[in-house]
Amino acid sequence: MTRKKYQFTIQYDGSDFHGWQVQKNGRTVQGDIENALNIIFPKEKISLIGSGRTDTGVHAIGQVAHVELPSRLSPLQLCNALQGNLNTDIQIDSAIEVDEDFHARFSATAREYEYHLVKRQSPFSRKYAAELKWDIDPKLLYECASLLKGEHDFTSFCKANAEVENKICIIYKADWIDNDDRYIFTIQANRFLHHMVRYLIGTMLEVARGRYTIQDFIDILNREKAEIAVSRAPAKGLFLKKVYYD
Amino acid sequence: MTRKKYQFTIQYDGSDFHGWQVQKNGRTVQGDIENALNIIFPKEKISLIGSGRTDTGVHAIGQVAHVELPSRLSPLQLCNALQGNLNTDIQIDSAIEVDEDFHARFSATAREYEYHLVKRQSPFSRKYAAELKWDIDPKLLYECASLLKGEHDFTSFCKANAEVENKICIIYKADWIDNDDRYIFTIQANRFLHHMVRYLIGTMLEVARGRYTIQDFIDILNREKAEIAVSRAPAKGLFLKKVYYD
Repeated sequence: MTRKKYQFTIQYDGSDFHGWQVQKNGRTVQGDIENALNIIFPKEKISLIGSGRTDTGVHAIGQVAHVELPSRLSPLQLCNALQGNLNTDIQIDSAIEVDEDFHARFSATAREYEYHLVKRQSPFSRKYAAELKWDIDPKLLYECASLLKGEHDFTSFCKANAEVENKICIIYKADWIDNDDRYIFTIQANRFLHHMVRYLIGTMLEVARGRYTIQDFIDILNREKAEIAVSRAPAKGLFLKKVYYD
Repeated sequence: MTRKKYQFTIQYDGSDFHGWQVQKNGRTVQGDIENALNIIFPKEKISLIGSGRTDTGVHAIGQVAHVELPSRLSPLQLCNALQGNLNTDIQIDSAIEVDEDFHARFSATAREYEYHLVKRQSPFSRKYAAELKWDIDPKLLYECASLLKGEHDFTSFCKANAEVENKICIIYKADWIDNDDRYIFTIQANRFLHHMVRYLIGTMLEVARGRYTIQDFIDILNREKAEIAVSRAPAKGLFLKKVYYD
């Protein structure tokens, strides 16, 4: 039977997952979707490729993934059959057929994340936002964000043992807004390093609460103050919002 | 030791509760808070009185309750000690000392509920909103709501075996708004009958999707069409928003 390549757009509530990527122990988004596809195609060795990993507790509004399968189902049929085998914390928002050279990770030209920081935690935000625990000057947050645009080496803002050599990312958008009960940070870049958004948020907050200065932040960004520790914001406030393709 | 009466304002995510009221089997909000108070006052027989019950799966942003306790703690100390013994799905937003004639239920002059109806369900709304499953004419929703204001006998819109004799409620506010990804209904009244808001929502939706007419709705409200069945909307979209006191 001929095969087709399908692209999925996926939302998930990351609260009960050990992140995107399949691992030996613990429920993962990739694992759940691959298992659901295996119910529909029992003889297939399923390999679902995401645009990138998300960590434990991180959510997605617009994760993208692709998979090659026998072509007996239309994208809509596949989408419906797949959703029927998934828990409600994963939602397949759409399925389309794509060219065989499409790759969810390598074809992506940009990714966008959103971070939610509530001024006061509530039973309704506790899994979907971090809580702001200090008095801050939001103008300092906005100023930090404005410094991020453009091309920078983000070595200071990634996990120490990150697997990639090249730490240069191009930031297309980096903005905070004050949205009633919360601050929301949106960042769009060609690529992100592991934990980069959470380190950026955590460190911007150190500035906004007065522990570091704007100059410290500039020095960290320019890798001129290795002695200043970056802080990492909690995973639960982070959403993979959109993945861009040409 | 002298005693004090405390008033709490409480938020809870109703998803994992069998409603407000203590029952033999199943976790309840009243039960959790009474147990938490018993940890602080081990020798007390705790009786927490809420402004009213909420059903299984119904949420609260502003439930109010009162309790009488030995007076050794300030309201703030009590609030903090209590929160320390609660799961994160209940939040004590405030505690104040009130006069001994205050009663969370009988002193309340009005209650306000909010109902969330999303146009498309998502992993993030699945526990906090019902999903609109039909094409509707929102103007018909708005028209139904406008008919509710004032004093009516809501016998048609309450649980058949409701325990109260008097079914007359005065509606102060009843409005739908179209808020981007969802419709939100707000209703304020001096009192509500059991399941009344959910029956109203369900039946307004029957009109908006064309199954019943506006005249049917008027007839049901006027108790002139007992043969037309009212529909009940799911609990998870309902929030007890605020309780009013003089």
